[in-house]
Amino acid sequence: MTGAPSFDTVAIVGFGMMGASLALALREAGLAKTVIAVDIRDDHRRTAIAKGLADSAEADPARAAAHADLVVLATPIGRFGDIARAIGPHLKSGAIVTDLGSTKGSVLADVLPHMPEGVAFVPGHPLAGSEKSGPENAIRGLFRERWAILTPTPETDPDALARLRAMWEALGAMVDIMDAAHHDRVLAIVSHLPHLIAYSIVGTADDLEDATKQEVIRYSASGFRDFTRLAGSDPEMWRDIFLANKDAILEILQRFQEDLTALQRNIRWSEGERLEALFRRTREIRQSVIEARQAYDRFEPPDEAGDREEPGEKTARAARPVTPGE
Amino acid sequence: MTGAPSFDTVAIVGFGMMGASLALALREAGLAKTVIAVDIRDDHRRTAIAKGLADSAEADPARAAAHADLVVLATPIGRFGDIARAIGPHLKSGAIVTDLGSTKGSVLADVLPHMPEGVAFVPGHPLAGSEKSGPENAIRGLFRERWAILTPTPETDPDALARLRAMWEALGAMVDIMDAAHHDRVLAIVSHLPHLIAYSIVGTADDLEDATKQEVIRYSASGFRDFTRLAGSDPEMWRDIFLANKDAILEILQRFQEDLTALQRNIRWSEGERLEALFRRTREIRQSVIEARQAYDRFEPPDEAGDREEPGEKTARAARPVTPGE
Repeated sequence: MTGAPSFDTVAIVGFGMMGASLALALREAGLAKTVIAVDIRDDHRRTAIAKGLADSAEADPARAAAHADLVVLATPIGRFGDIARAIGPHLKSGAIVTDLGSTKGSVLADVLPHMPEGVAFVPGHPLAGSEKSGPENAIRGLFRERWAILTPTPETDPDALARLRAMWEALGAMVDIMDAAHHDRVLAIVSHLPHLIAYSIVGTADDLEDATKQEVIRYSASGFRDFTRLAGSDPEMWRDIFLANKDAILEILQRFQEDLTALQRNIRWSEGERLEALFRRTREIRQSVIEARQAYDRFEPPDEAGDREEPGEKTARAARPVTPGE
Repeated sequence: MTGAPSFDTVAIVGFGMMGASLALALREAGLAKTVIAVDIRDDHRRTAIAKGLADSAEADPARAAAHADLVVLATPIGRFGDIARAIGPHLKSGAIVTDLGSTKGSVLADVLPHMPEGVAFVPGHPLAGSEKSGPENAIRGLFRERWAILTPTPETDPDALARLRAMWEALGAMVDIMDAAHHDRVLAIVSHLPHLIAYSIVGTADDLEDATKQEVIRYSASGFRDFTRLAGSDPEMWRDIFLANKDAILEILQRFQEDLTALQRNIRWSEGERLEALFRRTREIRQSVIEARQAYDRFEPPDEAGDREEPGEKTARAARPVTPGE
């Protein structure tokens, strides 16, 4: 990027792993002259300053918003409505508000009514993250070569949309624009259902007698481990997602349940040909995913990997696959 | 290892990815003087010889078994019964037969009746693998720091059991010994159910209209991708596993369905506290898995990583997490 920063003052409300990673990215790309970290937690505010992720820290969203050219909502989505109501009257004319939330229909409904005349709200969702929480787990380069989805309404200010698109692209993200309902349906399949199932199966395992549970942990590399990673994600954030995208999630969950019940029946009646036919189809999808990754996942490793992986994970991952298919 | 090879002649019946990886490991550890690759597929036999993974190749298991001190069954488990029947009359007295199958009760039932007096059958299951098939995908060091489970019966010859334990340990594996029924229950949870669910959800996605399916692939890093890896595993192998371990799988699947239905109801009725309580429990399991990995996954990266990862996977993995929690 050349020239002046895109935004004079950026307030990031909710300074967890995502908010802190965005602050880091904005500063390193020279896109924000001043970053205000807003968080109700003392320790998050302290970390923001101590790690040089923000210029100042503030507990009150309204006070921070009064100075901001860009406000980014980065708390769990269940808090967006209250925050929007609190900051609405204080926002500067010409300010842009966006968010990092994983659902978009509920966010539009919660936030838009509180936005005053002259303020643009552009809902956003960067498809990036980590199972770890907190600003101390901020990830450098988190958005590079990742998708960022923006879901404007027909009334959204086109200049504000263009500025946010440019911001995400400057951070290395690839931007897609779609309507909120479509976003919520696609994400229900691609992210919310997988997380729900992962939480469920890990919960099933947790209910086993202790001796068996120890063995499940011991042999988890056989498939179970992949689920535990998803099921280790932030509890409050995911509670909010499941409640906020209820309709789309229940619909795809219903389809999944039917399909799983059919599979169950195939197994009970030893219908081997049907099983094998399904497994051949799913193998093709895997192939498509690999091809898509070849297209999208070319990126330069960031300068400093930092504390981004489980202990031992990097070595294990780099040196061998995580043993599906056994 | 010092001294003479543990086995003079080893016949590996079914020279796919697993069989070929075992051949490679045995040769490099100096544990087999001669390796015979047995496979009905011409191309697998050619690869075995061309890549120096075996000394000779043979289509007929009985002919190979006649020379072998150790016979390893490494085909999909559905073929074990026929192979055992074919090789039984030709096995040398004092020979040991083992297998790499993912279920053990069915394998005992299929193989043991065909073993003649003076031949020991020691069922085995190394918890290692890859979604890729075929001897061209043999993985060096596949069994290092992995579990190998042996499931002898009370009648199994203790000397044969000791020799196999020593073999796996010499290949770098950690050996556990348990009875076959227990193995099948634990693996149903830790491996078979995760694979079944992954096949099911990827199948659900495959049934979507084409435009949505393309988006599922595009955004697959949000959670779905982990499932596609499991659902890309060998179709015939997994068909056999689900049929062979039917009872244990149906039982754990029933529990999982109940738990998922309860979750579905929590979502429908917006029972946020119950969701969050579950997600906090599952996060603890994740922590246990990470701690277990710290204990078990210390290993030296193999000399040559080879073609073990999806294109781009190694870089992506090493440099950043695979984005759960978004």
